[in-house]
Amino acid sequence: MSKKWVYLFNEGNRTMAELLGGKGAGLAEMTNAGLPVPPGFTITTEACLAYFAAVNSFPEGMQTQTREAMQVIEKTTGKKFGDTVNPLLVSVRSGARVSMPGMMDTVLNVGLNPETLQGLAAKSNNERFAYDAYRRLISMFGRIVKDIDGKYFDDVLNEYKAKTEGKRDTDLTVDMLKEIVVEYKAIYKRELGEEFPDDVWAQLFQATEAVFKSWFGNKAVTYRRLNKMSDEWGTAVNICTMVFGNMGDDSGTGVAFTRNPNTGEHALFGEYLINAQGEDVVAGIRTPMAISELAKVNPAIYQQFVDLARMLEAHYHDMQDLEFTVEKGKLYMLQTRSGKRGARASIKIAVDQVGEGIITEQEAVLRVKPEEVDIMLHPFFDSDSKQAAVKEGLMIAKGLNASPGAGTGVAVFDSARAMALAAKGTDVILVRPETSPEDVGGMLMSRGLLTQHGGATSHAAVVARGSNLPCVAGAEGININTDLRQFTVGSRVVKEGDVISIDGTEGMVFIGPIKMVDVDFNKEADLAMILRWADKYRRLRVYANADYPRDAKRAINFGAQGVGLCRTEHMFFEKERRPIVVGMIMAKNDGELRQKYLDELLPFQRSDFEGIFEAMNGLPTIIRLIDPPMHEFLPKRETLIEEITELRCKDSDPKALAEKTKMLELVESLWEANPMMGLRGCRVGLMMPGVTEMQVRAIFEAGCRVAKRGTKVSVEIMIPLVGHVNELKLEREKLERVAKAVMAEEGSEIPYMFGTMIEVPRAALVADELAQYAEFFSFGTNDLTQMTFGYSRDDAEEKFLRAYVNDLKILPFDPFQSLDQVGVGKLVRMAVEAGKATRPDIELGICGEHGGDPASIDFFHRVGLKYVSCSPYRVSQARLAAAQAALRNK
Amino acid sequence: MSKKWVYLFNEGNRTMAELLGGKGAGLAEMTNAGLPVPPGFTITTEACLAYFAAVNSFPEGMQTQTREAMQVIEKTTGKKFGDTVNPLLVSVRSGARVSMPGMMDTVLNVGLNPETLQGLAAKSNNERFAYDAYRRLISMFGRIVKDIDGKYFDDVLNEYKAKTEGKRDTDLTVDMLKEIVVEYKAIYKRELGEEFPDDVWAQLFQATEAVFKSWFGNKAVTYRRLNKMSDEWGTAVNICTMVFGNMGDDSGTGVAFTRNPNTGEHALFGEYLINAQGEDVVAGIRTPMAISELAKVNPAIYQQFVDLARMLEAHYHDMQDLEFTVEKGKLYMLQTRSGKRGARASIKIAVDQVGEGIITEQEAVLRVKPEEVDIMLHPFFDSDSKQAAVKEGLMIAKGLNASPGAGTGVAVFDSARAMALAAKGTDVILVRPETSPEDVGGMLMSRGLLTQHGGATSHAAVVARGSNLPCVAGAEGININTDLRQFTVGSRVVKEGDVISIDGTEGMVFIGPIKMVDVDFNKEADLAMILRWADKYRRLRVYANADYPRDAKRAINFGAQGVGLCRTEHMFFEKERRPIVVGMIMAKNDGELRQKYLDELLPFQRSDFEGIFEAMNGLPTIIRLIDPPMHEFLPKRETLIEEITELRCKDSDPKALAEKTKMLELVESLWEANPMMGLRGCRVGLMMPGVTEMQVRAIFEAGCRVAKRGTKVSVEIMIPLVGHVNELKLEREKLERVAKAVMAEEGSEIPYMFGTMIEVPRAALVADELAQYAEFFSFGTNDLTQMTFGYSRDDAEEKFLRAYVNDLKILPFDPFQSLDQVGVGKLVRMAVEAGKATRPDIELGICGEHGGDPASIDFFHRVGLKYVSCSPYRVSQARLAAAQAALRNK
Repeated sequence: MSKKWVYLFNEGNRTMAELLGGKGAGLAEMTNAGLPVPPGFTITTEACLAYFAAVNSFPEGMQTQTREAMQVIEKTTGKKFGDTVNPLLVSVRSGARVSMPGMMDTVLNVGLNPETLQGLAAKSNNERFAYDAYRRLISMFGRIVKDIDGKYFDDVLNEYKAKTEGKRDTDLTVDMLKEIVVEYKAIYKRELGEEFPDDVWAQLFQATEAVFKSWFGNKAVTYRRLNKMSDEWGTAVNICTMVFGNMGDDSGTGVAFTRNPNTGEHALFGEYLINAQGEDVVAGIRTPMAISELAKVNPAIYQQFVDLARMLEAHYHDMQDLEFTVEKGKLYMLQTRSGKRGARASIKIAVDQVGEGIITEQEAVLRVKPEEVDIMLHPFFDSDSKQAAVKEGLMIAKGLNASPGAGTGVAVFDSARAMALAAKGTDVILVRPETSPEDVGGMLMSRGLLTQHGGATSHAAVVARGSNLPCVAGAEGININTDLRQFTVGSRVVKEGDVISIDGTEGMVFIGPIKMVDVDFNKEADLAMILRWADKYRRLRVYANADYPRDAKRAINFGAQGVGLCRTEHMFFEKERRPIVVGMIMAKNDGELRQKYLDELLPFQRSDFEGIFEAMNGLPTIIRLIDPPMHEFLPKRETLIEEITELRCKDSDPKALAEKTKMLELVESLWEANPMMGLRGCRVGLMMPGVTEMQVRAIFEAGCRVAKRGTKVSVEIMIPLVGHVNELKLEREKLERVAKAVMAEEGSEIPYMFGTMIEVPRAALVADELAQYAEFFSFGTNDLTQMTFGYSRDDAEEKFLRAYVNDLKILPFDPFQSLDQVGVGKLVRMAVEAGKATRPDIELGICGEHGGDPASIDFFHRVGLKYVSCSPYRVSQARLAAAQAALRNK
Repeated sequence: MSKKWVYLFNEGNRTMAELLGGKGAGLAEMTNAGLPVPPGFTITTEACLAYFAAVNSFPEGMQTQTREAMQVIEKTTGKKFGDTVNPLLVSVRSGARVSMPGMMDTVLNVGLNPETLQGLAAKSNNERFAYDAYRRLISMFGRIVKDIDGKYFDDVLNEYKAKTEGKRDTDLTVDMLKEIVVEYKAIYKRELGEEFPDDVWAQLFQATEAVFKSWFGNKAVTYRRLNKMSDEWGTAVNICTMVFGNMGDDSGTGVAFTRNPNTGEHALFGEYLINAQGEDVVAGIRTPMAISELAKVNPAIYQQFVDLARMLEAHYHDMQDLEFTVEKGKLYMLQTRSGKRGARASIKIAVDQVGEGIITEQEAVLRVKPEEVDIMLHPFFDSDSKQAAVKEGLMIAKGLNASPGAGTGVAVFDSARAMALAAKGTDVILVRPETSPEDVGGMLMSRGLLTQHGGATSHAAVVARGSNLPCVAGAEGININTDLRQFTVGSRVVKEGDVISIDGTEGMVFIGPIKMVDVDFNKEADLAMILRWADKYRRLRVYANADYPRDAKRAINFGAQGVGLCRTEHMFFEKERRPIVVGMIMAKNDGELRQKYLDELLPFQRSDFEGIFEAMNGLPTIIRLIDPPMHEFLPKRETLIEEITELRCKDSDPKALAEKTKMLELVESLWEANPMMGLRGCRVGLMMPGVTEMQVRAIFEAGCRVAKRGTKVSVEIMIPLVGHVNELKLEREKLERVAKAVMAEEGSEIPYMFGTMIEVPRAALVADELAQYAEFFSFGTNDLTQMTFGYSRDDAEEKFLRAYVNDLKILPFDPFQSLDQVGVGKLVRMAVEAGKATRPDIELGICGEHGGDPASIDFFHRVGLKYVSCSPYRVSQARLAAAQAALRNK
């Protein structure tokens, strides 16, 4: 017996999204809850995977089961698939585990051919409707199943629309539609060399196959890559009895969210289009009415829909994204799923729903995505500057506030160019007449979207909200010419490359840049509430990486509980200190001369540390001793070679030549083939006596003085790049002596610890030995990732890493962004275990980029670290991610 | 009760070398075996370590136990330490676990002062002898215990010797000796501001302390470092009743080996000096007689000594290094220990001793050091060239053939300069009047030693043999002037920096270089025997790294059982192919153009592989696909910048400027900050489609064609730098397809495997995954060491690694020379286990530099690899090391 590949809607439920896809599971749940769902069934994601495994052939039994399911539907509806008298028509729609809006394909009206068409016309008593349905089938099938350029069909349709008075599709006459059908069929034959299929089963299975194949279509693959979704899920196919919103003015189709997906406001948000099929709304062909208008047009249907919406939200414990159709005054639900929402809305909805008793605090904490917290804090336009721009007439258009936020960038008129420019680091605003799934790549790499057409549920709006991009949609005041790569507003011309700004919160379009300001974190009450709940449930502490007092203060404001990484080298890089540092390096083996320079640096470093200790006010402050190779403080080798060659050639300035030559000699003597694995980290401290001693002296002098002024100080000193226990032993003994001596001189004691970074693979392998001399470990996962993979971070991205992730799919994600838990994570786990075995109370934390990445934070929680440290701006999201990790792994 | 710090000679035995030192254990063993050893006792190495642990203070009870032991000796000898009538004199000598010839210190005649001196004179009835002993005590004590420059004492002695007729120390009269004593004491007082101690216990304990301290003297530390001995062993101190070889012509002192330490010949080899103390022989002050001469001078003593020597060798199962003294016709044994020997001697002795039934085959295999096999195969002077040089009068001196082998290099006249030059890669011959322990650093880094003075047991000779350096000693024909940094032979002047050659096998000195030739491996019967035995006992197979057919042939001659690493990139580097390779790189994303160049490269690679397969004749051949980054095939960035700047400045050759600029653009586009972790290894194959396909095509075309010609072919293809399973999966699938296609085209099948290198730490961590797609693992321990430590091999040595090993003692040895078993080894072990778990029959081997290192081979045996692969010249020693590993870990 073959596997079960097909589930009737009443055989599934909400928990089966992996097998039935999100849409299929939703339809099943609604069916079983007694909601008005047209009868139908779902072909499983497993069938899709089996199809690919068999190199594009349906698994055994799938077709038979489909025919059997169809018989059940036929019984329920009393109609018959392919029947000439009372034909059953179906929609064929994709539905993956997680919604991928517009990414995959749908074919409506499957089951129509010249004979069934007559049955439909007779039965509906509406010939015009029947032909409208048929022309839709031919164009959708042609486009989606057979890959015919949609433009051919659109051109014909537009030509006929132009002949009507109203210029709208609803104005087309039956005769026109009949002619259109003839022309569509001709296009089909011309493009494919075959006739449009009359066999309804051929229509059905070819459409099913097309949906399967769309899983690996470019759009879908791009979307998944950008959203870190797995290629291995596959898509289900939903086959559903057609209901028709295009049967007249007592019919229509709508989409709605149970709450406002931009603001989170608790009110239905959506659109309704009279006498239309679903794709008309999404494609923005006619401008729909707001859903609230339906209350006036058809109060009974509206009330029924409001009740169902409320019921579904309560049922799912979440805001829902609904699709429905009204066929001759009867409401049918076609979709319910968790609705995508903007960051601000997500937070507000979660907090509101706790207040309404719909979800618990813990659910709220798990519901909000850490990235949403991050996005909430993205800067927006400074209101004075915005007002000024309005006054100056720089606001050139208004449109729909389709997705909130603010963005400035150069206007770009196609997706490919947007991707290319963005990859080079240019901020881009993508400007399109309307968007389609083909544009997603460029959309997601832009700073914002601007469309001329389309509403709040248009493709551009949906994608923008899902990706938290600002979007102004349907700004009809602008006139885009993609061929000229420009748009005009009246006489004003904005060309590709001109800077524009868009405000997606208010739907405004500006010429030129507008000053941005930070969100006032302290005024965001909903966010504060979510984070307060998060703090209740998390175990991981959240520290921040901060090199300057201002960073430390900002981090504390964002809720940081300490500084996990204070880099000390910037103190060497600052302009006034640079000559001293160069002098120190030039001293080479002359210890006395070097010490002279170090003595000059000491007061600078001391005052830096005083500032940080004061800002931290007693919170743990982990300071890393100098890390970069010395040549970073010197001029570049290539530049010197060029300058010297030029001076030599011109023979005009022997003094400069001599000086540069001397500098080049120094640079050459420090030059390394692979500086990342060279003389840096603790190796500097060991090979250049005096440097780290000076730093530790500065730390303790600063600490003691701040403490004497009445501010608490708690300092941890971190020795970088340790790979062998003897490095740590030597450095620590030496530095411990300095610490003790300074505290004795200052007549003051401050609490302190010495520890090491674990960032060289060997350190992780000998962590048991290191723990003898380290009171804490701080995982430097940036370097650890570099060396564990053998990827030079400076080079890999451009040379092969991007291709590895995007094109070759060798890596599921960039391991510098999210920790490679399998490989690098194994080293982290080993080090944690070995460190604890030697020193049970060892303090464990992490200070790489991964400290702010939610997936990595989950891992760090699971291996039992005490804290994660990340950049100040990521502290809030880390607090939330830490709480989610704790709740998820309870 | 305090620990036992002191052992009488009859309380110890040969197994106690760790506690009593080698010398102490030998004296104890001889004492208990009834040999004539002067009574004495040993202060343990533990006492030495306790002394350092207590920051230079004797452990509790040590002094008391010493006094008690002295009482026992006093009873045995009937003499009394410090007694004015019948004084007991003792020697105080160091003795570590393993002999460190001349590295540490000895003080003789301890117990003499103005009063005991009178007793000694009276009792011996020899006032001259007593004063001779006293002046020796003062100078040795002054020099060794108090660090007074020995020159002061030597000058006085030489001044008096000059006044005598014979100019020898034995010609000094009593009165002269008395005056010398007065002058010595004055020097002592002048240098130290205190009197020479009369208190005999003060003499003893200060001497003991000096011996302890000598453990950390520069000489000893250098020696241990160069010989990879641990600082943590400490030295024992042997206190032994003095016997006097300087009591007249019926007295004397000698040193002898039971077999010839240069050739291995089974005959006593050594020297005897009449009327002298031991240090006179070692210092080469008078020229001693060959030991065989003693048979004429004193046949009875000689025979007694011969019998004892034979007995000791049988007892110890090894060739012995003996010291003895004859006091007024009575023989005393002062030392027996395993004798240091040259490589050739070591092998001959081991084979002979098996024949003589003294040791077993297995003992012989364990006895010979793998390095000795290596050294045996070092090239020597081509005999025709040597004859020619002799004829041309380039042989300028003869000396003692003190240590065999041949060396050419620049003459250098002091140790420090020799070290400095050698560190830069210059071949150096160290030329000294005679050597002393201070010179060891420079000696061991030279290609050979030449001394003006000294015999076959002089310091230079002993060190040279122990280190398998060629040495010509006592070449009295040359006249060295260290101040002028030159030596003269008649009117001929050889200045520092001039190239000379020495033949230590025949004792010849040449001006200029002489052509070297390889040892004829096949004619070395003893070596062949040892290796045949080794092959019987080893489990590890030994492969060779060979890129060319000639290397492969050489490796097979040395006993290689396969090629473990055939690098394919040299095939790209060769001159005629370089432009094709550059063209291929310049093709960039133009796949068609790239393929054109690859098609041109194909026949070259194919014919390279044909050559190798033919040489290997069916033995396994493991070929690594291209590994280095592409920019290695292009001109250097710095050179181009310099050239372009110059061309631009001169403005004379716009065409050249354009060309160079274009090349620089290409170079810049490929430039990487850390190329070691950049686009290389399998990353090249993945990012530049066609390259590895071409290589695999060449391999299989070559293999099939060679096979069709009747030669067996067995090939394994190795994919380098894999870090993620998907890299391996993609490359392997792609290449497997090519392999199958080529074999189909050629209509022939050859056995083959695909596998991966494990050289990125992550590969070791995910070896279970890799083993799904790899039929074999080859550990690339060079890269694995680089990335596990985070040491760039190109930089680390000079920038910090040498200091880490030598000065800071952070690392016990250079991890690029011998595998870091603790850290890198842990990864190897993990990968072995994980690989076997996935694929129980996975083939495991190693092809880094470590494949030829004995300690590493032992590790590889223990973790269960199938083979090690090393350079052809190291194959023999690897065979031996593999056998030792098997025997040692039975």
